[in-house]
Amino acid sequence: MPPLTEQHGWLTSPVVVCAPMRLIALPQLAVEVSGAGGFGFIGAGNNLDKLDGWLREAANLVNDHSILRMQYEATGILPIGFGYFNWAPSEDLEKAVAAVRKWKPAAVWQFGAHNNEDYANWAEKIRQASDGRTKVWIQIGSVADAVDVARLAKPVDVLVVQGTDAGGHGLDSGAGIISLLPEVADALHNAGMADIKLIGAGGIMDGRGTAAALMLGADGVCLGTRFLASEEAAIAEGYRKEVVRATDGGANTARTKVYDKLRGTTLWPEKYNARGVLNKSFYDDKSGMTFEENQRLHDEAMKQGDSGWGVDGRITTYAGTGVGLVKSVMKAEDIVKEVQRDAMSRLRLAAKQQ
Amino acid sequence: MPPLTEQHGWLTSPVVVCAPMRLIALPQLAVEVSGAGGFGFIGAGNNLDKLDGWLREAANLVNDHSILRMQYEATGILPIGFGYFNWAPSEDLEKAVAAVRKWKPAAVWQFGAHNNEDYANWAEKIRQASDGRTKVWIQIGSVADAVDVARLAKPVDVLVVQGTDAGGHGLDSGAGIISLLPEVADALHNAGMADIKLIGAGGIMDGRGTAAALMLGADGVCLGTRFLASEEAAIAEGYRKEVVRATDGGANTARTKVYDKLRGTTLWPEKYNARGVLNKSFYDDKSGMTFEENQRLHDEAMKQGDSGWGVDGRITTYAGTGVGLVKSVMKAEDIVKEVQRDAMSRLRLAAKQQ
Repeated sequence: MPPLTEQHGWLTSPVVVCAPMRLIALPQLAVEVSGAGGFGFIGAGNNLDKLDGWLREAANLVNDHSILRMQYEATGILPIGFGYFNWAPSEDLEKAVAAVRKWKPAAVWQFGAHNNEDYANWAEKIRQASDGRTKVWIQIGSVADAVDVARLAKPVDVLVVQGTDAGGHGLDSGAGIISLLPEVADALHNAGMADIKLIGAGGIMDGRGTAAALMLGADGVCLGTRFLASEEAAIAEGYRKEVVRATDGGANTARTKVYDKLRGTTLWPEKYNARGVLNKSFYDDKSGMTFEENQRLHDEAMKQGDSGWGVDGRITTYAGTGVGLVKSVMKAEDIVKEVQRDAMSRLRLAAKQQ
Repeated sequence: MPPLTEQHGWLTSPVVVCAPMRLIALPQLAVEVSGAGGFGFIGAGNNLDKLDGWLREAANLVNDHSILRMQYEATGILPIGFGYFNWAPSEDLEKAVAAVRKWKPAAVWQFGAHNNEDYANWAEKIRQASDGRTKVWIQIGSVADAVDVARLAKPVDVLVVQGTDAGGHGLDSGAGIISLLPEVADALHNAGMADIKLIGAGGIMDGRGTAAALMLGADGVCLGTRFLASEEAAIAEGYRKEVVRATDGGANTARTKVYDKLRGTTLWPEKYNARGVLNKSFYDDKSGMTFEENQRLHDEAMKQGDSGWGVDGRITTYAGTGVGLVKSVMKAEDIVKEVQRDAMSRLRLAAKQQ
């Protein structure tokens, strides 16, 4: 397969992807990222009812953007993707398929299936709906799943290799991309599937993480937490402020099920949990408060609005271990360009110095 | 401060360090690594009784090695270091100080203190014993500890930045180096201590991880698990075989206290645990077996020798998430050289391609 930048004419190198964060990465953020030369995704999560409207909105935004419009007109492919959870009810598959048939997004991003066969079944329907022109991306978190998914859902275009540093949902135990990416690359190579593109995800915040992921074998990188602090993210101000405030993410975030439980999100497969910034909900759970009491306090905090976030708050701040590297809110376009520029200058400098 | 390769004449770039693995990294491995252009350490752990003998042995091996002998004669500094746990009894400090005074190793590596002041107290004595010629390395696992230790133990020569992917002991919760290294670098920079050298540790197995760590801001890398599978490691054959066999370390290793407990190692500070390959001891503990029964079975397995390791065994295989990247037993010298060569070719290629 040719490089991602050749498959998708608007992409520039190194490839920077914005994660399809559920209800946070919406058309504005997705199109802004693609417009900057990155790969934007709409995060539909487990509710695909609004998908058609979001894609219509994205198509309108694309038509307002000179480079993206040219791409769209020349190829008929909408230069963004959308992501969904494969644990959603199967009637949602029909909605995804209808959206692909109608809008021809550049890619769909699959994640969170109860079993790997579901990825394959959904992928086949997506490919049929677009005559194979909508690429299939699948997110995995272990070497075994990478090989299994690649075999079952053949041909997978992209595997998003998610390390355990990632914010939000992922496997409850796993490796960081420092070892996961190279082992996945080797395993796919040994299985004769080295042409699958790999996107590194989990803990990447800037040009340094991006250059590192490329060294580990990635064809591009995915940033989630960093884009929470973009102007275009559909995010509460309290949440975004907490992302900018929090530091030392290894010490001050954790992978846990307690936030999901408090939020009433109970449909994730058992082996998933989510990483968030530590707050009172977490500490009280740890020190033995009953779930009912914790729930009551959480639901009260939900009414506070923006002041309900923070280390003394109770509303969930999903974020990765790299949260301490996010220091300000920026335009998504500037994030993409800064990350690309810094990654390249690091690589060039190191190649010269050593 | 000048680069590590200028501070230590035998070092070549990129700097590859072998972790001071307790009772596994002994004189033969340490000198072999330094002889190859890396930085070898003796792992004394919490028992410094044998330290004088080990350093004598190392000095003899150094005198058998043409390049290292020249270095040693020219500088009077033994071109290896040794590492110890700072939770060892304070009479061990006297042993460490005596060894430094007598043998002038190039560095000591401090780790595992109950509080950061202990690092500072021990470091001061070490510096006095060598007129500051023995460098002080301290291993940390969080941004907060990096800054605190750097301030308390000033001047710290090297901070070893250990991510949670590391095998063996480390903080029970933390980030991978993908986010930990850059945030530590930024925090030290902001605190006016950017001249401290950083060594990345945790999940680095080969040239890919090494190149990645350099991109993240490291001045060099530390490999532990990879050197378990070196010919010169003082390791049981069953342990080494299990390191070569195990794959998919995110799925098949875990951070836990159960292995320490079974081995009777109870003196680590509460916030530390250790990563090892999953085996019957782990699974039985998880499925509710009493500790007494688990202990009995573990102690029986200890008598089996090499067959006591493995996924169906019960003897501990401390190893990092990158264990799946270790595919064969090699000479330590060849590991150092392969890692350096591959890291450099990756960096040069990427700088050209992008």
